[in-house]
Amino acid sequence: MAGSIFGKQFMVSTWGESHGKGIGVVVDGCPAGLRLSEEIIQPYMDRRKPGQTRYATPRKESDRVEILSGVFEGRTTGTPISMMVHNTSQRSADYSEIMNYYRPGHADFTFDSKYGFRDYRGGGRSSGRETAGRVAAGAVAAEILKELGVKVQAYSKEIGGIRAEHIDLDKIMESPLYMPDLEASERAELLLEQKIKEQDSVGGIIECVVKGMPAGVGETVFEKLDANLAKAVMSIGAVKGVEIGDGFLAAASFGSQNNDAFCMGEDGRVLKKTNHSGGILGGISDGSDIILRAAIKPTPSIAHSQQTVNRSGEEISVEIKGRHDPVIVPRAVVVVEAMVSLTVLDMLFLSMTSELDRVKRFFGA
Amino acid sequence: MAGSIFGKQFMVSTWGESHGKGIGVVVDGCPAGLRLSEEIIQPYMDRRKPGQTRYATPRKESDRVEILSGVFEGRTTGTPISMMVHNTSQRSADYSEIMNYYRPGHADFTFDSKYGFRDYRGGGRSSGRETAGRVAAGAVAAEILKELGVKVQAYSKEIGGIRAEHIDLDKIMESPLYMPDLEASERAELLLEQKIKEQDSVGGIIECVVKGMPAGVGETVFEKLDANLAKAVMSIGAVKGVEIGDGFLAAASFGSQNNDAFCMGEDGRVLKKTNHSGGILGGISDGSDIILRAAIKPTPSIAHSQQTVNRSGEEISVEIKGRHDPVIVPRAVVVVEAMVSLTVLDMLFLSMTSELDRVKRFFGA
Amino acid sequence: MAGSIFGKQFMVSTWGESHGKGIGVVVDGCPAGLRLSEEIIQPYMDRRKPGQTRYATPRKESDRVEILSGVFEGRTTGTPISMMVHNTSQRSADYSEIMNYYRPGHADFTFDSKYGFRDYRGGGRSSGRETAGRVAAGAVAAEILKELGVKVQAYSKEIGGIRAEHIDLDKIMESPLYMPDLEASERAELLLEQKIKEQDSVGGIIECVVKGMPAGVGETVFEKLDANLAKAVMSIGAVKGVEIGDGFLAAASFGSQNNDAFCMGEDGRVLKKTNHSGGILGGISDGSDIILRAAIKPTPSIAHSQQTVNRSGEEISVEIKGRHDPVIVPRAVVVVEAMVSLTVLDMLFLSMTSELDRVKRFFGA
Amino acid sequence: MAGSIFGKQFMVSTWGESHGKGIGVVVDGCPAGLRLSEEIIQPYMDRRKPGQTRYATPRKESDRVEILSGVFEGRTTGTPISMMVHNTSQRSADYSEIMNYYRPGHADFTFDSKYGFRDYRGGGRSSGRETAGRVAAGAVAAEILKELGVKVQAYSKEIGGIRAEHIDLDKIMESPLYMPDLEASERAELLLEQKIKEQDSVGGIIECVVKGMPAGVGETVFEKLDANLAKAVMSIGAVKGVEIGDGFLAAASFGSQNNDAFCMGEDGRVLKKTNHSGGILGGISDGSDIILRAAIKPTPSIAHSQQTVNRSGEEISVEIKGRHDPVIVPRAVVVVEAMVSLTVLDMLFLSMTSELDRVKRFFGA
Repeated sequence: MAGSIFGKQFMVSTWGESHGKGIGVVVDGCPAGLRLSEEIIQPYMDRRKPGQTRYATPRKESDRVEILSGVFEGRTTGTPISMMVHNTSQRSADYSEIMNYYRPGHADFTFDSKYGFRDYRGGGRSSGRETAGRVAAGAVAAEILKELGVKVQAYSKEIGGIRAEHIDLDKIMESPLYMPDLEASERAELLLEQKIKEQDSVGGIIECVVKGMPAGVGETVFEKLDANLAKAVMSIGAVKGVEIGDGFLAAASFGSQNNDAFCMGEDGRVLKKTNHSGGILGGISDGSDIILRAAIKPTPSIAHSQQTVNRSGEEISVEIKGRHDPVIVPRAVVVVEAMVSLTVLDMLFLSMTSELDRVKRFFGA
Repeated sequence: MAGSIFGKQFMVSTWGESHGKGIGVVVDGCPAGLRLSEEIIQPYMDRRKPGQTRYATPRKESDRVEILSGVFEGRTTGTPISMMVHNTSQRSADYSEIMNYYRPGHADFTFDSKYGFRDYRGGGRSSGRETAGRVAAGAVAAEILKELGVKVQAYSKEIGGIRAEHIDLDKIMESPLYMPDLEASERAELLLEQKIKEQDSVGGIIECVVKGMPAGVGETVFEKLDANLAKAVMSIGAVKGVEIGDGFLAAASFGSQNNDAFCMGEDGRVLKKTNHSGGILGGISDGSDIILRAAIKPTPSIAHSQQTVNRSGEEISVEIKGRHDPVIVPRAVVVVEAMVSLTVLDMLFLSMTSELDRVKRFFGA
Repeated sequence: MAGSIFGKQFMVSTWGESHGKGIGVVVDGCPAGLRLSEEIIQPYMDRRKPGQTRYATPRKESDRVEILSGVFEGRTTGTPISMMVHNTSQRSADYSEIMNYYRPGHADFTFDSKYGFRDYRGGGRSSGRETAGRVAAGAVAAEILKELGVKVQAYSKEIGGIRAEHIDLDKIMESPLYMPDLEASERAELLLEQKIKEQDSVGGIIECVVKGMPAGVGETVFEKLDANLAKAVMSIGAVKGVEIGDGFLAAASFGSQNNDAFCMGEDGRVLKKTNHSGGILGGISDGSDIILRAAIKPTPSIAHSQQTVNRSGEEISVEIKGRHDPVIVPRAVVVVEAMVSLTVLDMLFLSMTSELDRVKRFFGA
Repeated sequence: MAGSIFGKQFMVSTWGESHGKGIGVVVDGCPAGLRLSEEIIQPYMDRRKPGQTRYATPRKESDRVEILSGVFEGRTTGTPISMMVHNTSQRSADYSEIMNYYRPGHADFTFDSKYGFRDYRGGGRSSGRETAGRVAAGAVAAEILKELGVKVQAYSKEIGGIRAEHIDLDKIMESPLYMPDLEASERAELLLEQKIKEQDSVGGIIECVVKGMPAGVGETVFEKLDANLAKAVMSIGAVKGVEIGDGFLAAASFGSQNNDAFCMGEDGRVLKKTNHSGGILGGISDGSDIILRAAIKPTPSIAHSQQTVNRSGEEISVEIKGRHDPVIVPRAVVVVEAMVSLTVLDMLFLSMTSELDRVKRFFGA
């Protein structure tokens, strides 16, 4: 089936392989009238670009995004926005060896099982490079959300077990690891140095906060806001877990602790005294900040010696060479942000028909 | 938007409120020729039925499922299977008080925000009773999966912080809490007794294992098998987190530990020496058991005094009366099983066109 | 795959066979706050009910619709509306003979080809009785459309070649054939008398007009308003053709005739001097009346002797007994109306995000 | 909403405007292992290319298709196939005048109504140039269908009222109008000459035949094969009507004439003696050729003087200059073929789960 299409009302269709001609995305369902240009999207792309710090693969991709359609005189026209990033730094030689065996922790074996063969160059479609399309689309969604007063912000919450405890969202960009607790960030950097020497890698946790979300968004039963967020975030390559609000901690809590008491805000709005729920009750936004976390596994590509099998069915030992990040987390921060933005925007759009009176007002009836 | 419809090829449409005429589901896309009857489905329903043990609400619903269409001479016809459970035990009086305030931890406030008003009787559509439709549909999916050699099994992994360590899947049904470590199960029962006295509630973790899954199922990028499982499971009312394989533990692990080495099985198939991945690599099944866990929050309905607000905007203190489970986990076990079955079956169906050669063989071309 | 689910934002899931327990539909995505009751829906049902006139099968079904969920205190709650009609008049004996052969013009053979076997009682799921679910759902859509100032009206345009020339929409209900040209209606009645005697049947054309449709509804490229209308109407059992505006006549016209000149209305709105386009330009409503026509084939069940084969592969001659309409058109009028209502409403909802400024206004941003 | 995405299992996402950087399409859900290259796709593109004959706009676009992803070592990989055609011949000056008024018969007014403004260059997204993406995707579908033994062939059935009576499918490519009755084709050419002189345009009818379709494809109720074909074909810009088999003629026929008798073929298969049904019964393919016709309106762009209004609300008279086809039909033939191919392939894929026994065999269970 088609697996690279996301969303219902605001839809995104991505394409491209690590070592093909490029990576791209078509955004369909974007309202007309949004200011959009390559200059607006590029900063989002730069955050996931390789070669930014020494903790990221030194592959030098300019990752310049090009808008191919859907924008006229600086504004979106309401028709599909096609965007593309050309691949410029493809050292196929690096990968010629891996065509015959299955890298542990990678999708080589499962691709062969599913498709009968695979584009083995740099992981092909299962490469992290695929996320460039997500980020470009996420940038469009984020720009619309801004217009609606909604802000999505992700950061590294934990790297290799080192946790950001004193979060200051204004510091995110000051940390090379996008970790908004600079003391923890420094310790994490030291750990990464050590792991690079040990030819090993680490995992971590990304946290994402959505501010300004109106109450009442998300659907009951299967199309809950948290259900859609879980799918969106779990669809990112290395994510192995997703939680909302207190998440797995809630499982060990009591009802008397976990329930958030309601109170009245000064502006007459209903507020919650705490936010164990992470901004979602019964699958619908409750007006508090939405908070989710994603567990990211350690980079599977390591120079360490590993056991595996080749396509001839022989058990072999391999050391994976090439340019690899010792940790995926920092570059995945903007990807989580993108997926959350895409989901939140789509659910906002889909929520517009919940009440007949609001629909009537929209149509002037 | 429509929120009560699930799936793409094997689709499920549920309906019904806690205190309406009944709960039902339409299953559309079921292959013709499956043996099906009310007797086959009823055992699945009985596992989520209230009043089974003292740790579940004493509300006595017979929860008899009735098949209204789609089955002819004992076999499915390929057309929609409509199933219904009549509501028989509705004590509306219990709920008349809650119509005017927002129960903490419940969807009362978000429903009002979204729809402008709500069916306040017993939670209406946001009641756990809604899951009866999921279980009936999940039973149909499970029966098809059996025919394909795939078995889905869920159980209580943790209740109120008490963890099943020595899992024996054959013991699931021997525990009133569906916890396949009978010693842990007994300790959990004692904890529940205590919490009932304290007018409090506990949460827990449900684990689910899928055996017999062929490698190669799941799509790349957005429609990954784990992404769809995450959505399916997170859509269950009280679930606040989902993880696959090592999940959040993987976030604190190293690449050298977390990667699963490949080896050759005796039958010539490629196997993994460990299963940190939880049976999914790159979003596609790898032939190992699929393993996931869901974090369940404590029952929000507690007799404990709580702070909240009413619809007139006054801050009040409430004690929620009525029949409530001190823990949701045991009754949700079969619901998790249902959602995993629905997802796995749909993804199996959708995977059938991955390879041209297999499609040609199917059509005899 | 699932074939009985319709719509994207306003979704409808139908079920039921001619001779099963009943026919039903679940409407999901209906805005909260619509006044709805069985009394409001029943008049729509009565228009397709059998046994109304002598030109319809004398099968006596009360076709009483029952609302099972989604309505509370007389208003829709925003959650699924389940509706059911019990089958009460099932004379299975009538159909026992047809289980072994393929009725010409019916779906018996194709059902066997697709599913391996079939519910042969009265056509099972391919019976015209299936449309009861469409009409109940269409009634809900029509009630919302009324609130938005949109009115959908269908009628018999042609029966057995006899065409309504002088259309007066106020006369629709005065004709037993729903033909708003009473003189033509009488001639059509005479033709039907004759065809009943000849044990034959006739076809016809249904026309449908949508008034009050705002300009700007429908999407470019694949999700055009006319494309969705064509699918909706062609999905009705006996429909063999659909046309919009001048339709097939436009194919023989010239650009200078077929183009509709624009002019200014007294209220400052842009109008068209003619309506060859049928209210749709480039797949988007242009503010004029939407006009479509559906070609309905003659009832395939005729007592006339016909050649066919049985399941054993023998060529045989059959005469189909039982209760059959000599013409499908009059009872299908309300079905066309239902499908057009469902489509127009869904497209209205989906159009709400076309312009950023209107979305911002909706969310108060 | 997103309007440029088509299909469920085999999905197509198109983008691009008449005068932007290019036109493109992403095909997602294509099975792995299909031989594919630019050389295979180009001949399909050439059939809709402008400037082929004097009856088509002399705009010279090379329309060279470029494959950007999804093909590796000459075969599809199962991941998205991105294809693009660069726009090379954009004479924007031609169109600068039309930015301020609404061309009769075009989507200018409806685009403004929907989006608030429009890309006025050459019709932007509503230009016939959009169909290049459809044709590239349709070529991929057609290549798969060939592998499955299914052939889709369209041709001009009628142009300006001149009808091809003696159809010889082998002659399609011999006619500059793709009209497989060369005598009629010549008469149609003479008519076109005359209409060019008169600064007018003509419409026509395209017929499409699908051969080799197995019986049993298509779903009951809403997802009928004919319903999906109707939507697919009606979504092409200038199409105003679609009919299957006898279509509108069936409406004036009798049951005794319109029913197709079944008989036994020499190979033991069930056949029909006639094909009034056009190869579809109850929405499911019956094993006969599928036959459909599309009514195409006359080219709306004519040099003839026409009445319209401008964006300032003034009534004006205009003569549309520029490069325009006097008839759309010949260039739309391959577009109809593309849309039918996409639909038939998707429905074939979706039909694979109709019978449990066949599913079990597929999975070796």
